[in-house]
Amino acid sequence: MTDALVLHGFWRSTASWRVRIALGLKGLAWTGVAHHLRLGEQNAPKYLALNPQGFVPALVVGDDVLTQSMAICEYLDDVHPEPALLPADALARAKVRAAAQVIACDIHPVQNLKVLKMLRKRGLDEAAANAWAAEVIESGLSAFAKLIEGNDGPYCFGNQVTLADIVLVPQLGNARRFGAKFGFGRIAAVEAECMKLPAFIDAAPDKQADAEG
Amino acid sequence: MTDALVLHGFWRSTASWRVRIALGLKGLAWTGVAHHLRLGEQNAPKYLALNPQGFVPALVVGDDVLTQSMAICEYLDDVHPEPALLPADALARAKVRAAAQVIACDIHPVQNLKVLKMLRKRGLDEAAANAWAAEVIESGLSAFAKLIEGNDGPYCFGNQVTLADIVLVPQLGNARRFGAKFGFGRIAAVEAECMKLPAFIDAAPDKQADAEG
Repeated sequence: MTDALVLHGFWRSTASWRVRIALGLKGLAWTGVAHHLRLGEQNAPKYLALNPQGFVPALVVGDDVLTQSMAICEYLDDVHPEPALLPADALARAKVRAAAQVIACDIHPVQNLKVLKMLRKRGLDEAAANAWAAEVIESGLSAFAKLIEGNDGPYCFGNQVTLADIVLVPQLGNARRFGAKFGFGRIAAVEAECMKLPAFIDAAPDKQADAEG
Repeated sequence: MTDALVLHGFWRSTASWRVRIALGLKGLAWTGVAHHLRLGEQNAPKYLALNPQGFVPALVVGDDVLTQSMAICEYLDDVHPEPALLPADALARAKVRAAAQVIACDIHPVQNLKVLKMLRKRGLDEAAANAWAAEVIESGLSAFAKLIEGNDGPYCFGNQVTLADIVLVPQLGNARRFGAKFGFGRIAAVEAECMKLPAFIDAAPDKQADAEG
């Protein structure tokens, strides 16, 4: 594939962060276009024409636009198989995907900016909205920790960095932001191992061009 | 694969419903174990030992337990490739997965029973909780409709039933329950086509052994 890769994202968006990690693991060059979520830039008509959902990230690949971070990561894995982000065995692959989906389906969308805004519209103050986010994150990460139990480290599912690690590390960033506990099982140890890898280091929010202090 | 398939689910759970459709499309025999969600049976210690997240569905495959409905559907597709639930082309596959994830990540988990309970604990009454669900469903399905635009029918992505159809049809069941609008783009036409197929007909909630009137 020789198409230029353009990643529409936001430095602190955990879904954008996942794709940055995957691009780094695959050794792919990309350019970024930032959309400031708190300023609502993701709802500008020009961006909605790219992604009608008004969410980041979107990855432009030639004439095509890909949305949804997990679908993007799997696309990168399909087109650039090495290093693989999923195990070769179907059962093992299903378990990695399931763990990733605990975060990508059941944690992140329930505590993202859009939901917190909906809660504030219903009268919850900042502290109550943050407590909501912390509750969702703690409950989900506690289940995630049990799903990766029984696998040796260093990563979630052994010696191979997988989609599970790619979604875990950014979610821990959100855990810190919202004051959620996350010291369940091997989670902190896995994060420490991931953060030794250049792809994870370079993808961190504070390393992005649009990062704020 | 000769392992017996045991699906732990609930008749009205849309995530269980997705897996029932996929099992039907693949022509696989399965037996069901019902866990009544409103009675909290998914939080019984015996079930939590199967799925620490306390969510349905879980698919028991021999000695293994698979969780998360989309991971289960992709597992079934990996092990039983015909009929394929995803296109062969990587870009096309990414677009199907992205559309499915709009529902499986950004709609369903934000309006499921667990979240509605959290809202009621924060003082929202039944009508306000249902309005929350309707808002989430309408916003998501409106984006979903745009993502499948430009593809001819009869299904979301052409002539092949895909993961996008598998998640769409159950979500429309929830749209009706919560009084959400869903007549966006081709959505209603796709549902009508899907509901001509035995796998979709047999997977409907009211056809399940644990269905209530």
